[in-house]
This record gives sequence, structure tokens and C-alpha cells, in this order.
Amino acid sequence: MTIGDTVRLDDLPLRDDLRGTSPYGAPQLDVAVRLNTNENPYPPPPELVADVAAATGEAARELHRYPDRDAVALRADLAAYLTRQTGVELETANLWAANGSNEILQQLLQAFGGPGRSALGFVPSYSMHPIISSGTRTEWIAAPRREDFAIDVPAAVAELREKAPDITFLTSPNNPTGQSIAPDDLAALIDAAPGMVVVDEAYAEFSAHPSAATLLATHGHRLVVSRTMSKAFAFAGGRLGYLAAAPAVVDALQLVRLPYHLSVLSQAASRAALRHADATLGSVALLAAERDRVSSELAAAGYDVVPSDANFILFGRFADAPRAWKGFLEQGVLIRDVGIDGRLRVTVGTPEENDTFLQVATDLSTKELA
Amino acid sequence: MTIGDTVRLDDLPLRDDLRGTSPYGAPQLDVAVRLNTNENPYPPPPELVADVAAATGEAARELHRYPDRDAVALRADLAAYLTRQTGVELETANLWAANGSNEILQQLLQAFGGPGRSALGFVPSYSMHPIISSGTRTEWIAAPRREDFAIDVPAAVAELREKAPDITFLTSPNNPTGQSIAPDDLAALIDAAPGMVVVDEAYAEFSAHPSAATLLATHGHRLVVSRTMSKAFAFAGGRLGYLAAAPAVVDALQLVRLPYHLSVLSQAASRAALRHADATLGSVALLAAERDRVSSELAAAGYDVVPSDANFILFGRFADAPRAWKGFLEQGVLIRDVGIDGRLRVTVGTPEENDTFLQVATDLSTKELA
Repeated sequence: MTIGDTVRLDDLPLRDDLRGTSPYGAPQLDVAVRLNTNENPYPPPPELVADVAAATGEAARELHRYPDRDAVALRADLAAYLTRQTGVELETANLWAANGSNEILQQLLQAFGGPGRSALGFVPSYSMHPIISSGTRTEWIAAPRREDFAIDVPAAVAELREKAPDITFLTSPNNPTGQSIAPDDLAALIDAAPGMVVVDEAYAEFSAHPSAATLLATHGHRLVVSRTMSKAFAFAGGRLGYLAAAPAVVDALQLVRLPYHLSVLSQAASRAALRHADATLGSVALLAAERDRVSSELAAAGYDVVPSDANFILFGRFADAPRAWKGFLEQGVLIRDVGIDGRLRVTVGTPEENDTFLQVATDLSTKELA
Repeated sequence: MTIGDTVRLDDLPLRDDLRGTSPYGAPQLDVAVRLNTNENPYPPPPELVADVAAATGEAARELHRYPDRDAVALRADLAAYLTRQTGVELETANLWAANGSNEILQQLLQAFGGPGRSALGFVPSYSMHPIISSGTRTEWIAAPRREDFAIDVPAAVAELREKAPDITFLTSPNNPTGQSIAPDDLAALIDAAPGMVVVDEAYAEFSAHPSAATLLATHGHRLVVSRTMSKAFAFAGGRLGYLAAAPAVVDALQLVRLPYHLSVLSQAASRAALRHADATLGSVALLAAERDRVSSELAAAGYDVVPSDANFILFGRFADAPRAWKGFLEQGVLIRDVGIDGRLRVTVGTPEENDTFLQVATDLSTKELA
């Protein structure tokens, strides 16, 4: 008998707003073709694996000591990478890093949100934005998108002026729909938002659009560009999120971050992975090409496909999306039901995985399409 | 010129209660003898370093995939270790792990604290308890200790009944004063506390007292025992905190944890370190013996020494503790000013480090003692 197993969740003095909720997360199922969490399908190259092992082994010699609380060397490397990737001259003081972009977002909400404050996002979008807002007791305001999932800029500007959120989440490209926001639109939205603006660029490397970092020089007092090594970088297991912003924003986050939040192993492994950025990001062009191929073939099979700028595709319309999701799973293909009526999201995999997915999609189209 | 460096912290829409605060953290200074953060002074043995490198190298091959969100294998290993260390039969379902015990505490406060709720601790104690309470907007209630820093149990019982906190922090041994709480007293305090009780056992391996885990069978519906691998385990850089509780408590934390909070590298490295527990913990007896030696010699040099059950010692009384702290630093010995009038805290180091510290302490005693 497990100690304490007679205690039920309802017996505990849980926060009222958590009662009846379920933990966030896609099912972690052992399926042949996993196209459900927007991971990069290509394993890290052997040189990167060897370098991570060497770097963590070296760091392990000092495991009895606390890590550098400010992760200065890692932030310098991230600044160099982001400068190269965006063309914007960023320095260590502009960068901050944490255990995944989720922790970055949580720290932003702890510093600039909280009780009596609000955060606004244009839905459907990344589902952790409302969850982390709730976790920090920040009021969540769900603003609508157009029928085609793009942002209606004049309507959004009006909404931002009216609702005056303390934090505005913009996403470019947007998960789970795939569109980027053009720089002029981005500037107009930032100008209309009265508080902090977080542009979540988790999938930016897959997009041909310029990064919102190009606006830091003009909008730096309120703009935060958040990024992750989880997607294009093939480093989902390493849990490294980061942001670029004015140095004062980084100072603000240091007031709320848990001290020593990033282990010596995370810092060392991320730095090793960054040294292999060119090799890792070599897969990006291939994945973008595959994304376009999968989109075309889905359309040819009769699906309605939302144009994507990322490494995933939202498609439909299904008569019953949860049933169709199960249909894919029964054929060994795990994709994602993101809760949008009549649609499912598929991550772009290897050409072989995509072929398997497309075969199943074609087979299911006659039965499942609305 | 750094982008955004004209923006000042005061220009940002920071949460009001953060204005004027400073980031938590002891100075990270490059000094010969660092006895300020209660680290284990002994580096991990070469076998452990090699095993961590091999384990993280192996894990790195799957870095493109998200980690096991529930860290099941690691929690099983922690259950086995804690069962061995405490004599209490614990299972995977009783264990939860996070990036340092700070994240464990933050998740507990997110689940059971928050606005309109309160957390109580007996001060002076671990300074992160009020900081994380504030970060989660939980009202902090500072209850007093006796003059000798022990808990006055009858007074504490009355205080708990009167204040009725949603979360009570107990610490055994207590940082920065060093005393443990005897099991009967612990049970009396838990019985008096109406809400959740977190017994912070960060330094438990150094103590001869039984773990509060022995009370889980009788008090499991409200008791959480938190632990860390940072101290006795010589794994401060690895950032691995954990807890033992009823499985329903673990379920509650899964409602608030950030998904994929523990990287594959953290999970793999912690498991590797746990395989070497016996070797690593070999230093515990040595450090406990050194603690007793340093305590005696400090007393012989005229210092007032708080009896310690941990790997640090609170001593004084200084005419001016900040000035005395500086006196130690000028002699190449970094200790900690924990903000207690007339006292400083020293971490037990290697015999050589302790000798250096004791020499400086003896030299300073005539000048600095009150």
C-alpha cells in the first residue's frame, strides 16, 4: 500500500480555481510517427551530442557549487546567435534565459502581471499563455482572430485601446495556426498596446519574416521578444527559453526569478548546442520545404489548409476532429487536437514520416472530412 | 551602445510591490575560501563525474524530443534513495521533483497559497520562504522563535491556532540557525497547523534526527517533506529539489507545474548522481565531525555558538556583523551575513578551509566581538 494513498485531491486545501482542472500536456504515447508537439524530427548530429557530453562532463566537476546565478556566458552566446539570426546588434545585457520559454513567460507575468492586472492574447494561440496567466493570477483576456485565423489589425488595435491590458501576447508565427505578423502590423499593435508586449517567436527560425527584434531599437521600452531552443534548434529536451529586451526588462526579471534557476548542466549544454547552430539549423530549410509539400498534398486530398510559416500545419475541416484524431492514432500517427472545431494540427516530420501521415490523411479524407 | 539601454527600471510597468527591491542572492565572489552558501566543499568523485557525462551524453541523443513530463524514472530513484535514508517505505507516487527546492516551494505556494491565503514561518529561517510567498502573492506571517532560535512549541501551537495559516513552513534543521525539531514537537506543530505543512529538510542528511517522512503515514493528508540534492549530495550545480507527500499532493502540483519543467539532462544527471549516493554521502560524517570541531574552537575563541545539526554554524556576537563580515572577506574568507543582529553564518568546509576560517575568526575575535 502506498503511504498516503487514501488522501484524495478533494481532501486537500487546494486553491479554489484549480479544482476540477487537469494538468496541461499532450498525451505522451509511444507511437511510430509522433507529429504532435512541434519537435524537430532530426536528432542532434553526433558532433553536437559529443560536445554536450564533454561540456556537461566538464561542468559536472563543479556540481557541488551553485551555478552562475546570472548565466552570463550563456547569455553572451545567445546574444551572438540572435544577432546573427536577426541582424539586430544584441548584447549580453539584452538577453535572459530560463528553463524553457514557459519559465520566461512565467517570470514576465510575475514581474508585470499578477492580481489586478491583465494579459491579452489573440486566440486560438499558444495555450500556455492563459494557463501561465492564471497561474500568476493575471486576468486573461481572449481577443478574437479573423475567421482565417489572421489578426484583424484595425479591430485588434481598437481592442487593445479599449481593454488596455498590462501585457499583450503576440505570436509570430502563431501556434497552432501558423501565420506570422508583418513588421508594420506588429509596430501598429505595439503602438496600440499600453503595457508590455511579448512577441512569442518560438517558431521564428522557420519563418521568412524579420524578427520583432528589429523593433527593439524603436519600441524597446515595452517590447520583449521571446524565443526557445526547443523547436528549430532540436533542443526540446534541453529546456532552454530566452528573450531579448531592453536591459531594464532583464533587471526586472531578476527581481522575480528563483535564484540559481538554470543548472550548470543546462548552461553548459545550451552553450555546446549553440556552437553547432549552423549544423542544427541546417534542417530548417528542409522542414520549411516539407511543410509546403505537405500543405499542397493535404489541399490536393481535399483538406482546407491554413497557410503556415512554421513547422506545423492546421488543417480540416473534419466532421468530428476528436474522432479523426483517433483515426490517425489508430494508423500509428500521433497528431494534435488543439481544441479548434473541425481542425487538427500536424507537426512537419521527416519526409518518411510526412509520407506516412499523408497516406493516412488521404485514406481518412473520404470518411472524416465534413 | 546597447539597444534599449536608455530605458530605466522605473520606466517599466513593474508590479508595485517589486519597486525598490533587489534580486535575492549571496555575493558570488572569487575568493579562496568560500563558506557562504552551505555547499558541500568536496567535489563529486571522478566516477560520478564520468557517470554524469555518460548519462547526459546518452540523453543528448534525444535532445530534439521533449522530456518525460512526469519524470517517472527519476522519481522512482528518489523514492528508493529516500526510503533507504529515512526508513520510510516511499514509492514513485509519493515523490515529486523540480529545478531546485525553490521551484518545489513555488509550486506548493501556487497550489495551496496565493492571494487571500497566508503562509507562516518561524524566523529567522530560510529567506526564500517569504520571497517565494511574495512572488506568489501569498500573505507572509513571520512568527517568532525563542531567544536561542529554537521553536517555543507551546507558543508556536497557540500562534498556529490563532493565525490559521494556509501553509506552515517548518525547517529541520533550520537555516541559518542549525537546530532540528524533535519528532514529538513536529507532530504537535503539524496537529496545530490547520493547513498544509511543509517541512523543509534541505539539511536533513547532516542531522541525527529522524526525518519528518516518518510522520507521513499518520499526517500524510497535510504534510509535505521537501528535500534537495544541493547540500549533502554535493549537487548544488545540478539544481534538483524534491518532496515526499501523499500521492494526491503530487497530483495537485501537476496542476500548477510548468509542463516539461525538468530537462532530460537534469533527469539523467540526477539519476546518475543518485547511483553514487553512498560515495557522495560519505562526506556527511566528516562534515558533521568538522562542524563539531569548528563549533568547539569558535567557543574556545570566545564566540557564542548556536548548536548546529547542519553543515553551517551561526556564531557571534559581533559588535557590528557587517563590519566583521568584511573583516573575514579581507582575509580571503567569504561567509554569510544573514541579517541577524550581531551574528554571521559560516558553512563547514574542508578541514583546511575550516582551519583558515578559524585562524581568521581567532584573529578577529578581540577586535570584533561585542
